[in-house]
Amino acid sequence: MKLSDIGEFGFIDRIARNYPAGDASILKGIGDDTAVIPFSGNSVILLTTDQLIEGFHFCLDTIDGRKLGWKALAVNLSDIAAMGGTPIGFVLSLGIPAERTSVKFLDNFYQGLYWLGNKMGVELLGGDTSEGGERFIINISLLGKACKDKVVYRDGGQDEDDLYVTGRLGDAALGLKLVEAGGKQKFAGKLLDRHLTPMPRIREGKLLAERKVANAMIDISDGLLADLNHILVQSKIGAEIELSRLPLSKEFQVRAGEYTDNPLSLALGGGEDYELLFSVSSDKRGEVARLSRELTCPLTRIGRLSRHINGVVLKDENGRTKKAAPVGYDHFKTLKDLQKEK
Amino acid sequence: MKLSDIGEFGFIDRIARNYPAGDASILKGIGDDTAVIPFSGNSVILLTTDQLIEGFHFCLDTIDGRKLGWKALAVNLSDIAAMGGTPIGFVLSLGIPAERTSVKFLDNFYQGLYWLGNKMGVELLGGDTSEGGERFIINISLLGKACKDKVVYRDGGQDEDDLYVTGRLGDAALGLKLVEAGGKQKFAGKLLDRHLTPMPRIREGKLLAERKVANAMIDISDGLLADLNHILVQSKIGAEIELSRLPLSKEFQVRAGEYTDNPLSLALGGGEDYELLFSVSSDKRGEVARLSRELTCPLTRIGRLSRHINGVVLKDENGRTKKAAPVGYDHFKTLKDLQKEK
Repeated sequence: MKLSDIGEFGFIDRIARNYPAGDASILKGIGDDTAVIPFSGNSVILLTTDQLIEGFHFCLDTIDGRKLGWKALAVNLSDIAAMGGTPIGFVLSLGIPAERTSVKFLDNFYQGLYWLGNKMGVELLGGDTSEGGERFIINISLLGKACKDKVVYRDGGQDEDDLYVTGRLGDAALGLKLVEAGGKQKFAGKLLDRHLTPMPRIREGKLLAERKVANAMIDISDGLLADLNHILVQSKIGAEIELSRLPLSKEFQVRAGEYTDNPLSLALGGGEDYELLFSVSSDKRGEVARLSRELTCPLTRIGRLSRHINGVVLKDENGRTKKAAPVGYDHFKTLKDLQKEK
Repeated sequence: MKLSDIGEFGFIDRIARNYPAGDASILKGIGDDTAVIPFSGNSVILLTTDQLIEGFHFCLDTIDGRKLGWKALAVNLSDIAAMGGTPIGFVLSLGIPAERTSVKFLDNFYQGLYWLGNKMGVELLGGDTSEGGERFIINISLLGKACKDKVVYRDGGQDEDDLYVTGRLGDAALGLKLVEAGGKQKFAGKLLDRHLTPMPRIREGKLLAERKVANAMIDISDGLLADLNHILVQSKIGAEIELSRLPLSKEFQVRAGEYTDNPLSLALGGGEDYELLFSVSSDKRGEVARLSRELTCPLTRIGRLSRHINGVVLKDENGRTKKAAPVGYDHFKTLKDLQKEK
């Protein structure tokens, strides 16, 4: 049996089954945005890791060193944000094709890391560099901290919770389509930046956790439906999404139609938005609205959780509903997924 | 300027210069075996990361999944050992060539991780998997802890300290030569295991730190002389090594001569022994001897540190001395190094 037969999520399930968190001292092992490890008193350590491989996660033709450094750190910061934690610092491994990589490119890469790290108060703590062969390989592991009783997990979703997202959906996926089309057109820069230099929602995640607003939370890296599915499976619940409520940027509304017959599918299934998806008890709508103003960040109610729904139901503006198949980016099944989508 | 022009250590120096540990709350950033981050009270967090890339760090023809899993974790554990810390758990990133990687191989890999993790009390906390392309890519980041005032750094070496190593030197490098020669001969298995499944010196490092025996410590991953050089640079001191004191296994003594005219060069320069190199005040020789018995682990005095020596001096059994050029494995300068060694 080849790995491509069981796919990424099948493989992760297999590992989680075979190696359950055995040590009672570890609060969360495999299966949330970060690991959560009690350290002392009410403090917990958060640890997350993300790997970016040239040709699969980025393409050196379309991203410069600075943006690549930014993005490599951003995707990790987004995981800490999704737990409501505070990032501390990170270690970095690089596999570098030494013969074709310029020191200038690497300097830019570190500058991008440093820019975002500085903004977010995190520091480069150490790392490992070696020859990478054919591909530029980046691995960042990011350390964070939180209060034990304020961490927000994926499994905290409650019946009739409202579902919210930060920011806008689909811009990153549309940005990628623009890159692929070689686009220099209107809004291309802005949408591209949403793809290349996402701003992790650290402040948003922290306030949602500290004020005990969010019951369940995850970051949207694989696409809204795919990441929502993780909350649903772990919270043992279903959800309804109101399509007319999905927050779409002006740029998205103007440009998406040129690249797809179904712009909503980009907002529902396109990955790499790095927004936060979270559930909140419906009696806290006022609190969420106040928080949105305080953060100057859109927090948009897009649906609800329900014990009476199995999986995800999509409701259109006319109130018609249909079942959604959870679709995400499976690294080991990409071709099959693409064929399915067609 | 290509990366291959400045080499791995030149590159690391450049990064450490450009991005010095800025946050006063971090005790050690780049430049020791692990990062050391104060957490609460007298506790510090240790964090280290190591990347293994197929074709550069291992070859799938000569290592099975179980041993590869073991080794990937062992090299990280060795870094925690070198600080005198206690490992807690790790996150794992895999880049997997999905079409040619069997689920059986991956199961074996995780089994190897699990075996050693179990022995050392550390747990898989999470990770990231994706398509790797041409090469199998492994990255582990290992979390540990220690008491703030007991951590042993590379920069603690004192004038006239004795220099010690745990275990034996050169076996791993000889094991690699045997692998390359396709050897099934006498002791091949034992030497190969020293290369493929090194046993990290967690217990040894911990006791050396807790009892405040070691002043400076590092693990030997790049070779005795290369790693000694890190202690010397950071402690601003020189060293004398007594060649007749280098601890060589019986197997090494029997077999090394077949593969090299200069077996001592394997013990001095061969990497991947994952033993600990540490310095101790010379009035503690009795204490080290007792510790060696308690640990049932050879702790061999191989030389001394001295403010009056510049770099490293090698002393042979007749008392003749010569200067050693520090030689290590530089991932970006491999070819040049090899040519220099010839």
